[in-house]
Amino acid sequence: MTTEYGAAPLNLNLTTALAEFLARVEFDSLPEDVRHEGRRGVLDWLGCAIAGSTHPTITRLLNVLTALNGAPTATVIGDGRRLGLLEAPIANGQMGHVLDYDDTHMDGVILHASSPVLAALLALAETRRVSGAAFLRAYAIGFEVGVRAGQSAPRHHEGGWHLTGTLGTLAAASACGSLLGLDARQLVHTMGIAGTQAAGMQQNRGTMCKSFHAGKAASNGVLSALLAAEGFDSSDEILEGKRGFSRIYSVEQDVDRLLDGLGERWLITTNGYKPYACGVVQHALIDAMILAAEQCQDALPSVERVVARVNPRVVRITGVEDPQTGLKSKFSLKHSAAVAFLDGNAGIPQYSDARATADDVVELRSRIEVVAEPEFGPNEAAVDVWLTGGQHISARIPHASGTAENPLSDAAIERKFLSNAVPVLGDERARAVIAEVAALDRADDVSQLMRLLALAGT
Amino acid sequence: MTTEYGAAPLNLNLTTALAEFLARVEFDSLPEDVRHEGRRGVLDWLGCAIAGSTHPTITRLLNVLTALNGAPTATVIGDGRRLGLLEAPIANGQMGHVLDYDDTHMDGVILHASSPVLAALLALAETRRVSGAAFLRAYAIGFEVGVRAGQSAPRHHEGGWHLTGTLGTLAAASACGSLLGLDARQLVHTMGIAGTQAAGMQQNRGTMCKSFHAGKAASNGVLSALLAAEGFDSSDEILEGKRGFSRIYSVEQDVDRLLDGLGERWLITTNGYKPYACGVVQHALIDAMILAAEQCQDALPSVERVVARVNPRVVRITGVEDPQTGLKSKFSLKHSAAVAFLDGNAGIPQYSDARATADDVVELRSRIEVVAEPEFGPNEAAVDVWLTGGQHISARIPHASGTAENPLSDAAIERKFLSNAVPVLGDERARAVIAEVAALDRADDVSQLMRLLALAGT
Repeated sequence: MTTEYGAAPLNLNLTTALAEFLARVEFDSLPEDVRHEGRRGVLDWLGCAIAGSTHPTITRLLNVLTALNGAPTATVIGDGRRLGLLEAPIANGQMGHVLDYDDTHMDGVILHASSPVLAALLALAETRRVSGAAFLRAYAIGFEVGVRAGQSAPRHHEGGWHLTGTLGTLAAASACGSLLGLDARQLVHTMGIAGTQAAGMQQNRGTMCKSFHAGKAASNGVLSALLAAEGFDSSDEILEGKRGFSRIYSVEQDVDRLLDGLGERWLITTNGYKPYACGVVQHALIDAMILAAEQCQDALPSVERVVARVNPRVVRITGVEDPQTGLKSKFSLKHSAAVAFLDGNAGIPQYSDARATADDVVELRSRIEVVAEPEFGPNEAAVDVWLTGGQHISARIPHASGTAENPLSDAAIERKFLSNAVPVLGDERARAVIAEVAALDRADDVSQLMRLLALAGT
Repeated sequence: MTTEYGAAPLNLNLTTALAEFLARVEFDSLPEDVRHEGRRGVLDWLGCAIAGSTHPTITRLLNVLTALNGAPTATVIGDGRRLGLLEAPIANGQMGHVLDYDDTHMDGVILHASSPVLAALLALAETRRVSGAAFLRAYAIGFEVGVRAGQSAPRHHEGGWHLTGTLGTLAAASACGSLLGLDARQLVHTMGIAGTQAAGMQQNRGTMCKSFHAGKAASNGVLSALLAAEGFDSSDEILEGKRGFSRIYSVEQDVDRLLDGLGERWLITTNGYKPYACGVVQHALIDAMILAAEQCQDALPSVERVVARVNPRVVRITGVEDPQTGLKSKFSLKHSAAVAFLDGNAGIPQYSDARATADDVVELRSRIEVVAEPEFGPNEAAVDVWLTGGQHISARIPHASGTAENPLSDAAIERKFLSNAVPVLGDERARAVIAEVAALDRADDVSQLMRLLALAGT
């Protein structure tokens, strides 16, 4: 550090210090060699681009981009405006994940597959006639690829990646490839083009970027499949290759999982649905705290101390101690435990800014001790609650509600849908969506479903 | 493996085997639990998306996506059609890199910064009035962020990433943020949104995806800056954070490089330009082989044996032994050495399909032995050539031409530009571009430049 930033405040982080400097740069203060090199760089690069503009790869690319361009074909859910085929999936994918309420696959990976996959498929299904059968097949295929890619890279999550961004890109792309009826070679390229766009960092947990990952994965997926359909190619071993996905996104590989049991157990059948509006790893503890609250003798119990026991990974990824916003509170195990005990629920209202800073919640959070239990499964939790009156309550949850072992019923999923959809679509239209989805296997044209989602209110 | 693929040919790779299976799946053959879970998943996810559709994050996102949508504002270079603001940068960025002829920064990272940065800036500059000064300032800022991010993650390339995709996304985004006049906080978020999209795998070397990385980085960069301008947020320590860029994209960190010497030495001033149409790591050997050929006593020398000595990294990343296509031949050190000796050049014609499989080239490639020299710098090479007549020639290049230590002259850059641009734009228009770029510091409106590039031919 030899600049004026030597005197920067100690709490100024590096990215901010860099941005502070860059935001202040004036062109007039740049040395002439910077300007000169800028002009040289522009000229040299323009020449390369002009020469490259006639390359056959660019012709293929332009065929796809031109077809995409300027055609607002895809409906924005719950709104009704239409956006382009790269833009609408970003919006729909992000809105599917923004409340952390969407389905979660937990078979060795934690993947919210539907936000990337369905946001991609629904947009693509508005550009051509797609049957419900083809749609559901593509949806199942998205799970196969996303989950298996994750299983082939066992330490992928531990490496700092947000799997719904990375695996979601592979899943959405493969689902779109299936919807387009691509052959095996084109599907290989679809995965190759998708894998090379796979991104999303856990560093962005608690920010708007987290749910953006899901939307971007959907958009990347659409683009990947359309490019592969046009003959755009890629490595043919993007998943298992020497510098493939399982190697560079994980320090450990288990590539046999890519094919193991293929066609026998379909991974979509072990998908889980969230009863609570936060990360699924917290659900067992929420179940346990609700169970504990139900056992209180006192209607307004005063808690002296809580000891919560969960899998160590849960502590690591939801360790926010004292969240100041609703968004941050979704990543606070203590917050989830506190609202579950106080409110008997962990729905959207429990993760509001108001609840994150409410006195009763803050007070109870401070009395909770979290213990990492290496023997506990990821969906297992136990609590001991000591009340000031002397009562001691224990509760233990072997499998969180909404997991494959303790699944939500069809009726519970419909109730959850109505509570989510009625405030936006109204009761009649929300029930029409339920009926349309129930008959999806036989639907001639999936875009009918999007028309029901296109206009807000009733 | 308990499926019909147990009997797959041994040479069928895993990604292909998976794709072969998926391409054959029929909806009618899927078990009812797959269909049932599909319907449940669609319904549950739609509810989450509908509920999420009114979230303030989605409002911000939609403001940006709606503004982007359906507006073909950005010119495709050398073609003239216009595409949307997410699409045109993909095309222009990829065409800038598709010939592997674009500029290369080599200060500890190998980054082709201009393809992502300029493709992003030029598209954005067509949506608002941008002065040449603001444009060149943004261009220089792109280098600062891209190169410094790479320097902060020293083993990033070794990890299997294509830096023009990953660092290119950060560079393009920061440049666009500068062009939009964002403040420091918005620039932090621009980098945060960009970092979380950073991708591109070396596994895709030799395929259409490699240059696609540059285009996608440009498009991601535009989107990142526009989102940050709208108040979209991110982690405020995307580069140095515990799960930030330097940690998860590299097994080693050197985050002091983010700020070291900031404003003293501008990194754009050490940018390098390629005299040859292949990866810059091969250029020293090409120089050496051209020098050796010039020393031959015989006009048509017959080579018995060549020993080429280069830095070990060069061997690792350009080790294709016997390329069968022009594209693959760019990643073959032996091919580059052979054509350099035979043709006295390594331009676009030397990397054609025809030259990759020509008898004289194949023959000479087979006589070349490559030795990794740990003490050699990345732009250093030496050759010994033994001719059948008995002559022994040695040549040694301490710094490849086109590097910062042995830079191309302004005249050489203009000659390269003309050879690239005249076949597409014609002589008059190509010279008009040279004049426009030479006066860029004083230009009122950069989009004037794009108008010169908008129509092919003369």
